[in-house]
Amino acid sequence: MKQFVVAVVGATGVVGTEMIKMLEELKFPVSELIPLASEKSAGKVIEFNKKNVKVKVLNEDSFKGVQVALFSAGSSISETYAPLAVKAGAIVIDNTSFYRMDKDVPLVVPEVNAADVKKHKGIIANPNCSTAQMVLALKPLYDKWGISRVVVSTYQATAGAGKEAMDELALQTASIMNGKGPGVPRKFSKQIAFNVIPQIDTFLENGFTKEEMKMTNETKKIFGDDSLDVVATCVRVPVFIGHSESLNIELKKPFKDIAEIREALRTVPNLVIVDEPEKKGYPTPIETADQNDTYVGRIRRDFSVPSGVALWNVSNNLRKGAAFNAVQIAWELVNQKLI
Amino acid sequence: MKQFVVAVVGATGVVGTEMIKMLEELKFPVSELIPLASEKSAGKVIEFNKKNVKVKVLNEDSFKGVQVALFSAGSSISETYAPLAVKAGAIVIDNTSFYRMDKDVPLVVPEVNAADVKKHKGIIANPNCSTAQMVLALKPLYDKWGISRVVVSTYQATAGAGKEAMDELALQTASIMNGKGPGVPRKFSKQIAFNVIPQIDTFLENGFTKEEMKMTNETKKIFGDDSLDVVATCVRVPVFIGHSESLNIELKKPFKDIAEIREALRTVPNLVIVDEPEKKGYPTPIETADQNDTYVGRIRRDFSVPSGVALWNVSNNLRKGAAFNAVQIAWELVNQKLI
Repeated sequence: MKQFVVAVVGATGVVGTEMIKMLEELKFPVSELIPLASEKSAGKVIEFNKKNVKVKVLNEDSFKGVQVALFSAGSSISETYAPLAVKAGAIVIDNTSFYRMDKDVPLVVPEVNAADVKKHKGIIANPNCSTAQMVLALKPLYDKWGISRVVVSTYQATAGAGKEAMDELALQTASIMNGKGPGVPRKFSKQIAFNVIPQIDTFLENGFTKEEMKMTNETKKIFGDDSLDVVATCVRVPVFIGHSESLNIELKKPFKDIAEIREALRTVPNLVIVDEPEKKGYPTPIETADQNDTYVGRIRRDFSVPSGVALWNVSNNLRKGAAFNAVQIAWELVNQKLI
Repeated sequence: MKQFVVAVVGATGVVGTEMIKMLEELKFPVSELIPLASEKSAGKVIEFNKKNVKVKVLNEDSFKGVQVALFSAGSSISETYAPLAVKAGAIVIDNTSFYRMDKDVPLVVPEVNAADVKKHKGIIANPNCSTAQMVLALKPLYDKWGISRVVVSTYQATAGAGKEAMDELALQTASIMNGKGPGVPRKFSKQIAFNVIPQIDTFLENGFTKEEMKMTNETKKIFGDDSLDVVATCVRVPVFIGHSESLNIELKKPFKDIAEIREALRTVPNLVIVDEPEKKGYPTPIETADQNDTYVGRIRRDFSVPSGVALWNVSNNLRKGAAFNAVQIAWELVNQKLI
């Protein structure tokens, strides 16, 4: 099998670390791994396929000979370096929000729109974590009944804001438990330990946050359907890893019963139904540790609209919401013979 | 001013303790306080209006001479003892779910339907915590524009499940932070520390929990309007005190702008608008400690329906959701000259 030179930009971050794990776990055919990071992290040693690999400093010359470059080091890094990587001949899979809404950049969740990969002009975007896990559950319902509107409220883990945010939850919790108070929050706007914060990312003029509008706009783009409306409230909760979502989905056509909805959901790869509520059969974030699958439960008829479905959706935000989806896209490049 | 003999059933519980605090803070005219509890707690001493009062064992003869009896000791206690209290001449204000849907029992949130108090036949019910804080925000919108549907997802604190549940969050958190793992959950179905659980109360045949259907049915009853539909997803979060709610409200008539919605919300007593999001101006649960007010923020136009409003609603679940509302009802009895 053909093998590829793969660069990971932001290799020492929470998502970058998972990306390297995923390349290994999903057996992506890597001839050489080039982990790239800022000067601060350069020189660190990473284990990949049982070999030690040294982290290099990201610079203009980093992409010589690279065929696939996975980016997860923040929007400004992607803005500057993704075009350089493309110029050097690499295909970029970008996990930041920078290129997602660019009309020349496909935004891909392989279970939903794998075919869009081939439209790329050098860059393919990975959607926002909260969008990725949601569209997985929407896909079969959209295909069979059509969807007019989705109301979603999220319960998002601190890992979505990076390693320092996870540390803030841990240290703040310890400080409170030790009777020393929460201290001054640095990564979050307010205390996150034993609290919930209805803000993720900054606010827009319409009163929604960028994170909330990402769920709206990215979903429209992934389905290629501007009439599919999503209205979101995104909330940070004191969880380390794993985003949860409460969805109320309005279908365009009537469905028979919930069994029919379950049957449809069962057809989606990497989506697992956990729905025996009387036996505690519903997913929660701690159960998604090290899991690539997205879990759906609490599936029930929303009696307040003609054809409504309510459900609860949980996923490891570092995996389906980031690293797993990115490496899935890389595999699509191979399988669709685009590299 | 006339004064009254007041009994508090479940006086040593989380809500009972707050009820006694509220009687004092809201200066309810008490001539004698009779704190009642199970044998386990009898003999304990409680401070009320700077006097020590001994907790007595609840029994059939507890209500002799009592004029107002506040109950918060679980449904089965209310089932057995509320009729005995009424028989003895007391008016019962019951915080459990037992009588809430009884057609002979008014279900009251004073800011919404204070007039219903006078329909009582001995018992007045206090709504579920998550319902009480929600209807406060719905009231002015209902009056001015009508409401056809509300989609709500909750972020409910452990205090809603009692003192042992709060202890479980604290001890489990400490155990995890000390590297000893979460231990076996007792009050919750799964680990609550650093996790969220999409189950509150038991499951019904339609896939909703009792807690979720309380929000639906109690709201209809409080507004006296069966056409007002609420669909809820109730989720426990690792917070000690303070419930949060993400609401998507569909109005029957168009509104001009969000300023108009704010103006309407501003008319509700005990409802405070905190809505300057760019300056971190939105409410979170830790900010509701010892507060009777309910807070609303993140008020924005829900663009996915013709006349939609999305907002975020936070309240101390032991106060507006329980003790504060109960003592407000007791004051209505006085103000409406019903005792």
